[in-house]
Amino acid sequence: MTLDQISTPAALVDMSALRGNIARMQTRMNALGVALRPHVKTAKSVPIAALQMEAGARGITVSTLKEAEHFFAAGISDILYAVGMPPSKLRQAASLVQRGCALKIIADNADSARAIAQFCSENAVKLPTLIEIDTDGHRAGVLPESEELLAIGRILHSAGVLHGVMTHAGGSYACSTPEALAAFAEQERSRCVRAAQRLREAGLPCACVSVGSTPTALSATQLDGVTEVRAGVYVFFDLVMQNIGVCSNREIALSVLTTVIGHQKDKGWALVDAGWMAMSRDRGTQRQACDFGYGQVCDAQGQPLEGWIMESANQEHGILAHRAGATADVAQLLPVGTLLRIQPNHACATSAQFPEYQMLEAGAVKTSWPRFYGW
Amino acid sequence: MTLDQISTPAALVDMSALRGNIARMQTRMNALGVALRPHVKTAKSVPIAALQMEAGARGITVSTLKEAEHFFAAGISDILYAVGMPPSKLRQAASLVQRGCALKIIADNADSARAIAQFCSENAVKLPTLIEIDTDGHRAGVLPESEELLAIGRILHSAGVLHGVMTHAGGSYACSTPEALAAFAEQERSRCVRAAQRLREAGLPCACVSVGSTPTALSATQLDGVTEVRAGVYVFFDLVMQNIGVCSNREIALSVLTTVIGHQKDKGWALVDAGWMAMSRDRGTQRQACDFGYGQVCDAQGQPLEGWIMESANQEHGILAHRAGATADVAQLLPVGTLLRIQPNHACATSAQFPEYQMLEAGAVKTSWPRFYGW
Repeated sequence: MTLDQISTPAALVDMSALRGNIARMQTRMNALGVALRPHVKTAKSVPIAALQMEAGARGITVSTLKEAEHFFAAGISDILYAVGMPPSKLRQAASLVQRGCALKIIADNADSARAIAQFCSENAVKLPTLIEIDTDGHRAGVLPESEELLAIGRILHSAGVLHGVMTHAGGSYACSTPEALAAFAEQERSRCVRAAQRLREAGLPCACVSVGSTPTALSATQLDGVTEVRAGVYVFFDLVMQNIGVCSNREIALSVLTTVIGHQKDKGWALVDAGWMAMSRDRGTQRQACDFGYGQVCDAQGQPLEGWIMESANQEHGILAHRAGATADVAQLLPVGTLLRIQPNHACATSAQFPEYQMLEAGAVKTSWPRFYGW
Repeated sequence: MTLDQISTPAALVDMSALRGNIARMQTRMNALGVALRPHVKTAKSVPIAALQMEAGARGITVSTLKEAEHFFAAGISDILYAVGMPPSKLRQAASLVQRGCALKIIADNADSARAIAQFCSENAVKLPTLIEIDTDGHRAGVLPESEELLAIGRILHSAGVLHGVMTHAGGSYACSTPEALAAFAEQERSRCVRAAQRLREAGLPCACVSVGSTPTALSATQLDGVTEVRAGVYVFFDLVMQNIGVCSNREIALSVLTTVIGHQKDKGWALVDAGWMAMSRDRGTQRQACDFGYGQVCDAQGQPLEGWIMESANQEHGILAHRAGATADVAQLLPVGTLLRIQPNHACATSAQFPEYQMLEAGAVKTSWPRFYGW
């Protein structure tokens, strides 16, 4: 199919950019001597995860047990569920393990650890658990120097399920220079390795030291003591990553194909049939150096139209405007029926709005790949 | 099922609030002497639309042709597609009409109108079209006093498809007093009726005069000259509507059930397994009188926990905090495993993240109702 045969809005994935992004990250991890465990929450698509595995990934990271079920059913068995485990989800996790899934879970507090240890003992099941380490204060985890780290370690070890430590340097999204990013990556590495060292010094096992975020994975200069890296959004990249400085605009593999449906000529607006339902409500570039509104406008070939952004959005309406205001006859420039592509702020959020990806290769869509959602 | 048997996060719908919201709007429209054409984009669920039709709705409004296909297949045939029609979608619209769907479409510019008229003539099909009127400058539409209104009217009439006028007072979302809302509703009514009058004075037919938004529908004191009202979010209501003043907190029918997974005690945070993937990235209350972050925290019974909001969110992590800061021992107050409900900023955006609704009646979930998505 050519683009004008596709019903809009649609999620387009540029195969060449996708393959390049996968190769770039894998090559980098190979050079740094660590395993890559991609976070498949970004694309939630079996054929895309398959490309990552073929390129050399060792296992995957998931953000929901539904993802674990889905990818395990598709043949991927080495899975880390990277969200803190409440007692109510232990039965489903154990069921995956009993069916042969090498599922790992995480915990960052003694209450969760006790529930895991007790469940494993009572049900004669092993749920290998990583202790989540807080290396930047942005979300979950225990501090590397805390007493709680050792307490959690002892509880998990008593049930034979202490597998290691993990952290996610989500705070790296606030960086925007190579120097700041490299320093953040080193902070993530050193604090997580320090937590592993403290566990080992206390006589506790720590086989796995898992770190990662797309910005730090692409900025680390060395990963001594780390066994694996997790990263997700690099598979598509997006405008947030471009602003952070870890990808070029041409590496953004995901865009939303849309059609011009009208104008407000006095205001210089073109209205399109992709609103926030298609782009998501993510305004991730709002507080970055360059605010792209709801996305960068490109022509149908994917070439950015300099200065044109999706300025605002309703559910199924996007309002496109030039940063400079109403300077041209917008209805002549972008007449009704014009096909455009909008690059997203945040690929994880935008892709989540679509049941499928239109896979674009050499200017044509030859296939669509499914994406799932929900819990 | 009791709530603790439901996998979290989950979209809960309180049946009693839902029925009350549907009855309230229908009763109001009956009293004002106009037809109600609910916008089903909010819930995208056949059984919910069926409740609206049973209550007295005459037809539905949709935001995508997929919704039109889906609800037509479910037996609802009087459908208004309320997004401007590009030429590329005419074939699908015509196919619906040829299968017996009483589909209406809209246009707000001469180019679209010409494409519609030409398509209808060439294909011997009638696509009844409403001209979209701009009554508040917030998005699409032609001005009631414009020459373009009559030009579009003539083009559509030449193909025998001019059905009337429609407007959506989306600008009413910026109001927050009953007086401002009533004035906005009257502006919406009077400007749309004026457009109808101008068409009729020019010898053009205008059978339908369609207005609506939830805030104006609930604030209009008279609707003379209007034939139907469209409204969507009232079916669930949300915190944005509460801030505007058109619903009480107890009328909010949609919430997200979630589980506490950890804490950052020093910061007073509780972390839950509902992040922005569950709540959506909608921050609709950000610039309103009361900013609820990503939502109001309630206990499992739906009672608001005063001062507790979802302060920030990652994909599958919500960070709950008290507005007053870290004042209590959060791990004692909301221990790991605690079930909570989060009321959303914007029900249309939050509900879109879920494949199904858990229908809550008398404290238990007896059934789940499906929701669809995509285009």
